[in-house]
Amino acid sequence: MPTAPNATGRELEGLGTPALLLDEARMMANIARLKSRLERLKVRFRPHLKTAKSVEIARRMMTSPEGPATVSTLKEAEEFARAGVRDLLYAVGIAPQKLARVTALRAQGVDVQVVLDSTEQAEAVAGASRGSGQAIPAFIEIDCDGHRSGVIPEDPRLIEIGRILHDGGAELRGVMTHAGGSYDASDPAGIEAAAAHERDAVVACAQALRAAGLPCPVVSVGSTPTAHFARDLTGVTEMRAGVFVFFDMTMVKLGVCRMDDVALSVLTTVIGHQTGQRALIVDAGWMALSRDHDETPGAKTHGYGHVCNLQGVPYPDLIVTHTNQEHGVVSASPGSRARSPELPIGTRLRILPHHACATAAQHERYHLLNTDNRVVAELPRISGW
Amino acid sequence: MPTAPNATGRELEGLGTPALLLDEARMMANIARLKSRLERLKVRFRPHLKTAKSVEIARRMMTSPEGPATVSTLKEAEEFARAGVRDLLYAVGIAPQKLARVTALRAQGVDVQVVLDSTEQAEAVAGASRGSGQAIPAFIEIDCDGHRSGVIPEDPRLIEIGRILHDGGAELRGVMTHAGGSYDASDPAGIEAAAAHERDAVVACAQALRAAGLPCPVVSVGSTPTAHFARDLTGVTEMRAGVFVFFDMTMVKLGVCRMDDVALSVLTTVIGHQTGQRALIVDAGWMALSRDHDETPGAKTHGYGHVCNLQGVPYPDLIVTHTNQEHGVVSASPGSRARSPELPIGTRLRILPHHACATAAQHERYHLLNTDNRVVAELPRISGW
Repeated sequence: MPTAPNATGRELEGLGTPALLLDEARMMANIARLKSRLERLKVRFRPHLKTAKSVEIARRMMTSPEGPATVSTLKEAEEFARAGVRDLLYAVGIAPQKLARVTALRAQGVDVQVVLDSTEQAEAVAGASRGSGQAIPAFIEIDCDGHRSGVIPEDPRLIEIGRILHDGGAELRGVMTHAGGSYDASDPAGIEAAAAHERDAVVACAQALRAAGLPCPVVSVGSTPTAHFARDLTGVTEMRAGVFVFFDMTMVKLGVCRMDDVALSVLTTVIGHQTGQRALIVDAGWMALSRDHDETPGAKTHGYGHVCNLQGVPYPDLIVTHTNQEHGVVSASPGSRARSPELPIGTRLRILPHHACATAAQHERYHLLNTDNRVVAELPRISGW
Repeated sequence: MPTAPNATGRELEGLGTPALLLDEARMMANIARLKSRLERLKVRFRPHLKTAKSVEIARRMMTSPEGPATVSTLKEAEEFARAGVRDLLYAVGIAPQKLARVTALRAQGVDVQVVLDSTEQAEAVAGASRGSGQAIPAFIEIDCDGHRSGVIPEDPRLIEIGRILHDGGAELRGVMTHAGGSYDASDPAGIEAAAAHERDAVVACAQALRAAGLPCPVVSVGSTPTAHFARDLTGVTEMRAGVFVFFDMTMVKLGVCRMDDVALSVLTTVIGHQTGQRALIVDAGWMALSRDHDETPGAKTHGYGHVCNLQGVPYPDLIVTHTNQEHGVVSASPGSRARSPELPIGTRLRILPHHACATAAQHERYHLLNTDNRVVAELPRISGW
């Protein structure tokens, strides 16, 4: 049975579990840290709203209530536009079928910008621009590290795509890239190198477009690791980043933040003890944590997340090692000599997630906590596409 | 650009992507197959509603509109009770804090049953029974294969827990187990052995309780693999299973079904081609597919799911190999000699999921398809806890 509620934990004791908690002070510190860093680097900040998917949190992240901001779905674009945001980059390669929703938002005065990396998409965007009588602004995506999408810097299609847009009735707004490969860096020096490479690749493409007589006013880069380790962003005009708002165990492991910067956690209850083992069963399974987890073997894994007490203080080496839909298995990380705590049935715990974007996506709302760990608001999330 | 819509595909062409599709004929065949199997085995069917989380689908799965059925959250119990279900097993170990919601449902005439595996939980359930003036029916969970929760069959606590319930004012309804270890079987013979072991473990516990003078009217087993391969269920009174309603690539790999039994798929659109590689980028990332994936290395993996054309016909060895939030990377499975198809930007595809429970959980609704692949209904899902 749980211990008697105390002054700081009382409201958390009253919440049903599992539940998504958000420490407002930590979040505000994470936002302030990155904003001041980007001011020093003299680039505009275009926060990615896909991690939080919340109007209230977006207002805390953006430099103005009208943006700029980045989104990952047109549903987000529509919801944030409804809340007054006017400058939105939809940062996933555009499908021709989605252009009608883009032009509908633009007709309402929202500057929605699209991303593409092929001549076929450029033709479609140019065609929709002519068809709607408004030049749709487009970014050419640059593949700076071979991890996913984009034109590689040496590809002659870069200029070809630029010409199709510019000459076809669309607006060539600029170039953008995402150093997704920075997540594979093994240390801060590796992230710093990824940031320099991200900048070099996209600035070279901007210069190539301008040398071909094409406009390229915006040069956009972004990932949470490179945003925190870039030293020189000469030639870059804006930075995007998303997960920094909450941080997570992936960012702790990369050295981008400390464990006590992680603002997001899942409140859970102990519902069992494994026979003959020092493992606990909790009511946060993958439905509450997501199936995203650290696949690193051995003692260095944090599994599905790191386990803390109700006040948010981490237990040494205590992690969620396995999940089923509504069951989580909690034990010491493999190879650890830490002793698992004796926690009776009914004990409340908090889990710092492996991947904040994926964990938050499993929930309909945040429970916003003040510095006394009291719930001061519930913030709904945007879902669907 | 997509090909012109044809008669069978027209409505699918009109859906926004990603979207969750459900082939009704396949689902109904999956349900009929298991129901007739369990009739032959002479056990009651208590379908698990956690996979579908839909009132409309539950009515197709259950043997009567009032149940019986199994749920994984009290939110499901409350929503299905509102829809008229009257016999519900909440199959996750009960936390003492949740008993008030159980007694509230029972006061409305819903026979909600709880599960536990400790003396602490038994004391809490007995106490809540006395406090509410109604005997709460409880199952003792048995650990038949060491994979998660439950009392091991030889543990003297089995009788102790039974006595606390029976003598303390609760109702000892029976014993239950879940052969989660059957998912690790390498072939149908392995699943058959797991089913026999699941039966033996739980029947032995029922006999031990009865020998101690305690009641044990219900003996409940269940997992989709063992439900389909059990040969003899003597001593068992009811079977639970959930994922069978949709099936998925995990069940195909285990040999429980064929690929053309899988009723669930995610509709997606090609949004890019990777430079210098034969990989496609689609707009179904982990937000649409979940982060659950086949971690088997080499050619035998199906990754995040198997890729089909718009009509649902699988491409040989074509899988989703990687995901980001809104991006999926599609390519031939590692080591395959199959040639990836040439699919232009805008092409619609369907992905058969690795794990149907996890993929469905990423969506707010199903698009129900008839045999002409036309959308005939949208079915909402229950979410939250």
